Amino acid sequence: MTQQHLPVDVSSLKFDAAGLIPAVVQDATTKQVLMLAYMNHQALTQTIASAIATFWSRSRNEIWVKGATSGHYLTVESISFDCDQDALLLTVTPKGPACHTGSNSCFEVDNVKH
Amino acid sequence: MTQQHLPVDVSSLKFDAAGLIPAVVQDATTKQVLMLAYMNHQALTQTIASAIATFWSRSRNEIWVKGATSGHYLTVESISFDCDQDALLLTVTPKGPACHTGSNSCFEVDNVKH
Repeated sequence: MTQQHLPVDVSSLKFDAAGLIPAVVQDATTKQVLMLAYMNHQALTQTIASAIATFWSRSRNEIWVKGATSGHYLTVESISFDCDQDALLLTVTPKGPACHTGSNSCFEVDNVKH
Repeated sequence: MTQQHLPVDVSSLKFDAAGLIPAVVQDATTKQVLMLAYMNHQALTQTIASAIATFWSRSRNEIWVKGATSGHYLTVESISFDCDQDALLLTVTPKGPACHTGSNSCFEVDNVKH
């Protein structure tokens, strides 16, 4: 990992009290929203350096390379942040279903309909 | 607001320690991700009842009907939650730019490129 992979703007991002920032993950091709996960500074810098979506697992309290177990890595096409600098949007190309249930998206089922 | 507007599943959602759940907001037509905001139980039930996206403003500590000031309301087409029941996805039809900057999306600028 070299400095050239780390845009200066990363330092201006607002991580929360737990050191996390939420990341919306969207399929770069279909535009489907796949999941919402959290990154700490290390996960974000690792994601930028590797172009493989890497998060902080709040349940396991560890760095979580998405797909490390399933092989369903998410190749990151772009990362942007919002006007408040406290949320990220990743567009990705998934190597398989993003959800552990086998669905393309963790939001697959339209559970609450108006 | 009557009970018929409140799906049973709402009670199974996991709100965080602050009583909030993050909501990804996506344009129902263009599929563009517009913003990430937070709801408490009241904001969610109000959203379901009114079909107008309503959040909890963490900065102002109050219920925030998106568009109440600008007129750029977000009409909610669907609400779904993820496999962990701790995140929401709203698809909406916006009545104007979703971002206070005048951009369609709060993620408009691709700030961090791999």
